[in-house]
Amino acid sequence: MSESLQLGLIGAGYMGRAHAIAMHSVAATFGERYAVTCAALADLDAEAAARAAGTLGFARSCDWHDLLQDDSIDVIDICAPNYLHREMALAALAAGKHVYCEKPLATDAVGAAEVARAALSSDRICATGFNYICNPLLQLLQEMVNAGELGTIFSVQGRYLEDYLSDSRVPFSWRCERALAGAGALADLGSHLINLGHFLLGPIARLSGTVHTVHSRRLVPGSCESRAVENEDVAHALVEFANGVRGTMDVSRVASGFKCGLAICVQGTRGSAHFDQERMNELRIYKCDDPAGRRGFRTILAGPEHADYAAFCPAPGHGLGINDLKVIEVRNFLRAIHGGRPVSADFSEGLRVQQVMEAIELSHRERCWIEVEYSRA
Amino acid sequence: MSESLQLGLIGAGYMGRAHAIAMHSVAATFGERYAVTCAALADLDAEAAARAAGTLGFARSCDWHDLLQDDSIDVIDICAPNYLHREMALAALAAGKHVYCEKPLATDAVGAAEVARAALSSDRICATGFNYICNPLLQLLQEMVNAGELGTIFSVQGRYLEDYLSDSRVPFSWRCERALAGAGALADLGSHLINLGHFLLGPIARLSGTVHTVHSRRLVPGSCESRAVENEDVAHALVEFANGVRGTMDVSRVASGFKCGLAICVQGTRGSAHFDQERMNELRIYKCDDPAGRRGFRTILAGPEHADYAAFCPAPGHGLGINDLKVIEVRNFLRAIHGGRPVSADFSEGLRVQQVMEAIELSHRERCWIEVEYSRA
Amino acid sequence: MSESLQLGLIGAGYMGRAHAIAMHSVAATFGERYAVTCAALADLDAEAAARAAGTLGFARSCDWHDLLQDDSIDVIDICAPNYLHREMALAALAAGKHVYCEKPLATDAVGAAEVARAALSSDRICATGFNYICNPLLQLLQEMVNAGELGTIFSVQGRYLEDYLSDSRVPFSWRCERALAGAGALADLGSHLINLGHFLLGPIARLSGTVHTVHSRRLVPGSCESRAVENEDVAHALVEFANGVRGTMDVSRVASGFKCGLAICVQGTRGSAHFDQERMNELRIYKCDDPAGRRGFRTILAGPEHADYAAFCPAPGHGLGINDLKVIEVRNFLRAIHGGRPVSADFSEGLRVQQVMEAIELSHRERCWIEVEYSRA
Amino acid sequence: MSESLQLGLIGAGYMGRAHAIAMHSVAATFGERYAVTCAALADLDAEAAARAAGTLGFARSCDWHDLLQDDSIDVIDICAPNYLHREMALAALAAGKHVYCEKPLATDAVGAAEVARAALSSDRICATGFNYICNPLLQLLQEMVNAGELGTIFSVQGRYLEDYLSDSRVPFSWRCERALAGAGALADLGSHLINLGHFLLGPIARLSGTVHTVHSRRLVPGSCESRAVENEDVAHALVEFANGVRGTMDVSRVASGFKCGLAICVQGTRGSAHFDQERMNELRIYKCDDPAGRRGFRTILAGPEHADYAAFCPAPGHGLGINDLKVIEVRNFLRAIHGGRPVSADFSEGLRVQQVMEAIELSHRERCWIEVEYSRA
Repeated sequence: MSESLQLGLIGAGYMGRAHAIAMHSVAATFGERYAVTCAALADLDAEAAARAAGTLGFARSCDWHDLLQDDSIDVIDICAPNYLHREMALAALAAGKHVYCEKPLATDAVGAAEVARAALSSDRICATGFNYICNPLLQLLQEMVNAGELGTIFSVQGRYLEDYLSDSRVPFSWRCERALAGAGALADLGSHLINLGHFLLGPIARLSGTVHTVHSRRLVPGSCESRAVENEDVAHALVEFANGVRGTMDVSRVASGFKCGLAICVQGTRGSAHFDQERMNELRIYKCDDPAGRRGFRTILAGPEHADYAAFCPAPGHGLGINDLKVIEVRNFLRAIHGGRPVSADFSEGLRVQQVMEAIELSHRERCWIEVEYSRA
Repeated sequence: MSESLQLGLIGAGYMGRAHAIAMHSVAATFGERYAVTCAALADLDAEAAARAAGTLGFARSCDWHDLLQDDSIDVIDICAPNYLHREMALAALAAGKHVYCEKPLATDAVGAAEVARAALSSDRICATGFNYICNPLLQLLQEMVNAGELGTIFSVQGRYLEDYLSDSRVPFSWRCERALAGAGALADLGSHLINLGHFLLGPIARLSGTVHTVHSRRLVPGSCESRAVENEDVAHALVEFANGVRGTMDVSRVASGFKCGLAICVQGTRGSAHFDQERMNELRIYKCDDPAGRRGFRTILAGPEHADYAAFCPAPGHGLGINDLKVIEVRNFLRAIHGGRPVSADFSEGLRVQQVMEAIELSHRERCWIEVEYSRA
Repeated sequence: MSESLQLGLIGAGYMGRAHAIAMHSVAATFGERYAVTCAALADLDAEAAARAAGTLGFARSCDWHDLLQDDSIDVIDICAPNYLHREMALAALAAGKHVYCEKPLATDAVGAAEVARAALSSDRICATGFNYICNPLLQLLQEMVNAGELGTIFSVQGRYLEDYLSDSRVPFSWRCERALAGAGALADLGSHLINLGHFLLGPIARLSGTVHTVHSRRLVPGSCESRAVENEDVAHALVEFANGVRGTMDVSRVASGFKCGLAICVQGTRGSAHFDQERMNELRIYKCDDPAGRRGFRTILAGPEHADYAAFCPAPGHGLGINDLKVIEVRNFLRAIHGGRPVSADFSEGLRVQQVMEAIELSHRERCWIEVEYSRA
Repeated sequence: MSESLQLGLIGAGYMGRAHAIAMHSVAATFGERYAVTCAALADLDAEAAARAAGTLGFARSCDWHDLLQDDSIDVIDICAPNYLHREMALAALAAGKHVYCEKPLATDAVGAAEVARAALSSDRICATGFNYICNPLLQLLQEMVNAGELGTIFSVQGRYLEDYLSDSRVPFSWRCERALAGAGALADLGSHLINLGHFLLGPIARLSGTVHTVHSRRLVPGSCESRAVENEDVAHALVEFANGVRGTMDVSRVASGFKCGLAICVQGTRGSAHFDQERMNELRIYKCDDPAGRRGFRTILAGPEHADYAAFCPAPGHGLGINDLKVIEVRNFLRAIHGGRPVSADFSEGLRVQQVMEAIELSHRERCWIEVEYSRA
């Protein structure tokens, strides 16, 4: 491609690194038209940006405000701390950039709505960083659901369980602080589960939810004081989708033993399917039409006959990894910029997810069912 | 044993046969003190009773009312259709018999309360037929929970999914009729899940639930008319136990691919556990105290070091079956008659389960959380 | 049934108990024509026999020689120690009884051939106790193989791994002594694997094998002396079946973590299948004819559409246990006596299994391939 | 890093692309000291090289002979067709380059020995492309074996099953031709299994093997003629390692349903372990020292506490993919060039693997055990 897109990335931490690796791999994986030039790296910590620029393959480092002034930059990629997402995304859109923003768009739905509105009034491409739905097998499942291969879906069980805060001795961090993180397990994990539900089944219409904090205080690092945790460790919800599907959702950041337990099971009139991110290269499906005495859940291993897999490996069952999902997500974003299919999760979806999360918290307080009010961003 | 208990069994169908096999096996399995004499078999259909008596090893057949008059009969075992349980159990207790009654005690909580009250005012041993909790591995899990091996439990996900009515062409039957069956999936399946929750975690205190019927009409057998299904195919609930544990429950009789999907996952401050009846000889546990880098869910195979297994097989991992659980249940009942430990599920538990089921239906109608009112039977 | 068969059982230990339970259950499970009267129980230890007769539901106890004199006895069931099988089976046949003998027929192939010859020259029904092949799912697999559902089978991997002697501190027992046990892991476990191979694929024609003893000495119980173990802990073999199928077999009684690891995987030109006794209610099959992108190993749960399952339970996936396999085995034996299909493992098969075991030991000594010589018993 | 290594890559096909992606990712993943400049891309097809250079991020394309003349090139990476590996590796070493060569080193052991000897007489770093052993969980298993965590290992079962040629209609290709491919399933798959065995247990000392071709002829593409397949579809072997471990190996390229079935199970005196590449983020271990009644195979999910995982993802259980293994392999090679630890599979190991493969073929012809003669390369 003669003119590759010029990327300005904000955030030299882990997520910035993951994005950088994906940006370097995407053209070799999906073809030259997705070439990206890693032009400049910014970080709140200027020295960190300078140090990382070389390793991460960026031509230079700079202040993030400078990226917006630079007309040669086409795309702003936001991997900064969550509480800055809103401000940066608004500024990038105001500067006429395409914007790729890690979830969440903001720490609350009001902020997210502001960002989503700005995206809608611009002609720029905007993507929220929901990586799991890029899995070839979840694309397959979406395709099967849409094509009616499992009949009409009527029930769903979703959960996203991890255990990174299950030990009560893990100290207080920004994740436990409302102003910096917004919600707790719902923001970190539940957001992905809600997005996956939307991806497969469309919007959630109403719900009854409950949240609670298992470890209510945690030690302040480098101190012998403890501090109250300000958001939830666990959430449970009954959900009803606009299309009538009903089910349950369980979300936890304190579920011992679960490391990436994003799992979903859907049941339809002609079959069922089950996916678990901990076995991300497997999709289990059951078809009622299989012959009697030969029916059973079938474990499909991801392979080149499924969307996007072949770009990584010509042989089935060899296994994609979490970082490969990010490469697909980046390709989707770049493809949209080049005039192709829309991104899989735009800013409106980022907002909808935030609205469902807040509806769960509201339902908890009100002890009743809540209709999810999707403000038209 | 010089004086074996004299049994009168009502019901020559499948469940009666399962009970008969268990009665014949229990002494050889657990020892001579559990010897039972299969004295008489009754059935609404006298010919069926007569035919089955020989095969099932009963000395004679008779009308069920005659069983109650017969002073030589010690125990009445009720495997008749559900809508008759209440009447038969009350009559058996009035006649001074020990009573072993398949679940449900009645088709509604009012009837169940009547039966449970009668049991409490008598000195007879009464047991409700909840077989799954007799599994050596669920006994192990209960022991681990009670001993705090997993720390304090705070979350639970339970489900009981089957698919015996998932095909819309399965005709209307008594299971779809409120007067004969009571509730639908909740009665058949949910009752076991609720009982399992109680067994592990104590009583459910409050809940928010929803029920729906996927196939709202079914063909009347031998006719081209269809008839409205009168109870639910699916139920979902948020539950909160009296001890503070919170979680979700999913119940379905139309979940394609699930054949006996009674599964429960509990999370505690020091570990987690997972059980699925479809792999009834496996319990998966996770211990936070395992060394770093070596932690993981561990699959324990049932073996002679677990309660009651050794009576069936001296070697671990060889596999018990569903009928073996019934033998354990029968032994528990007989042991209580002989003055040993209480039965695992008495009539009060049968009533509590019914009350939780009705609370789910009430919550569905009221669209709000319901406090479960356990009428002291 | 007016004339039920009269059974004399030899052996009041675990295996005798397992047989007794099966004999009591078989008619209730499979129908009145399989009724058996438990007439007399014998044991080398007359007091043990007397004590057990009541519990195990036998009318009386006696010396085993008396059973043979008793004309009212139709069937002799041999659950005595292995080294006595040959003598007892020969005597029972000489007395004109039908004989049901636990494996092995003898502690070596010469002895087994003697027994098998006696069976062939009599008109009595003789069955060797190979229970695993009675599993409805292995019957299904055999049916699929025979019908060509997986195409032409060409490869097989079989293993039977357990760990009952994996701890070097387990003391010396009769199992370690050539004169009492014959071979070691091959006799206990390998015999079942070979029988399963024969059941699915026909006779093994040639092999290259190796055996070794991991713990070469064990403590004599109640002593501080150790004694040399006289047979193998582990065996490995390359096998070639008469039909051209080639593969490997692994057998071990010291394989830590394996409790009943009898597993077999077959590959054919149109599909593959995998079975593991530790998940005895599951058969995994792969069909090449499934549509592209939807192929995968399918887990079939045992259910009433598979042979013999419905007799135990009308609902699929509820789970049979190891003892239920014995009930099927007993039914097969009784059915043959009543003039129905042949038993699944007759004495000739018992002999063939022994001959394969000895060929493995011979191959180990000779360090070359061995043609299995099936002496026509 | 001021002086990054200059890479010349031969091969613009799939494997070249996989290497290119890994080369671009390695510094961002493992740190700046592993920076590589993708200087030039060669291919037998000059146009293909020219086309791919841009996408794969190479500065230029050229003829492979030119790479050797170019003094600025430090490293030659050989991803050309197998039959050229020997010639290219020898030339690259003669030109004083470090050499990274995809397996196999040559199409027979004589050729591989030539290459391995050249490597030993040079001071250059040489690595053979065995990627699977780079898995953090296989590194963990090696560490556990070496540290005796499973006691003394005595048994092993290894298999590598795939099905890319299981359909008899797949046409004849270079893989079926002895001169181009060398062996068949043994070369493609068996080589990895042998390497994994060596990695965990040291060299194989002797073996008894058998090979066969299931589909003996295949259609020549674009023709209606068929051609004889010149190498094996399936291999089975009994193996004995120099350290006394004994076991079996199964290799197949026609095993329907298996997509990347590289699996190994080892048993030791204090535990067992099991790994399967199709679930490459899981290692199952059993520890005899776990408390009674709580023992079972434990599924460890790869995480940052295991070697090299953290470089890809800070959170456990999120999943690495096959391409990530290549990044680790590249890092190992570069680390050795920079004076760090030796590569995990040098050319001598490449030779040893070839020698074991040939011993299996020899054993098949001779029908006896073969001592593996490791020619000191």
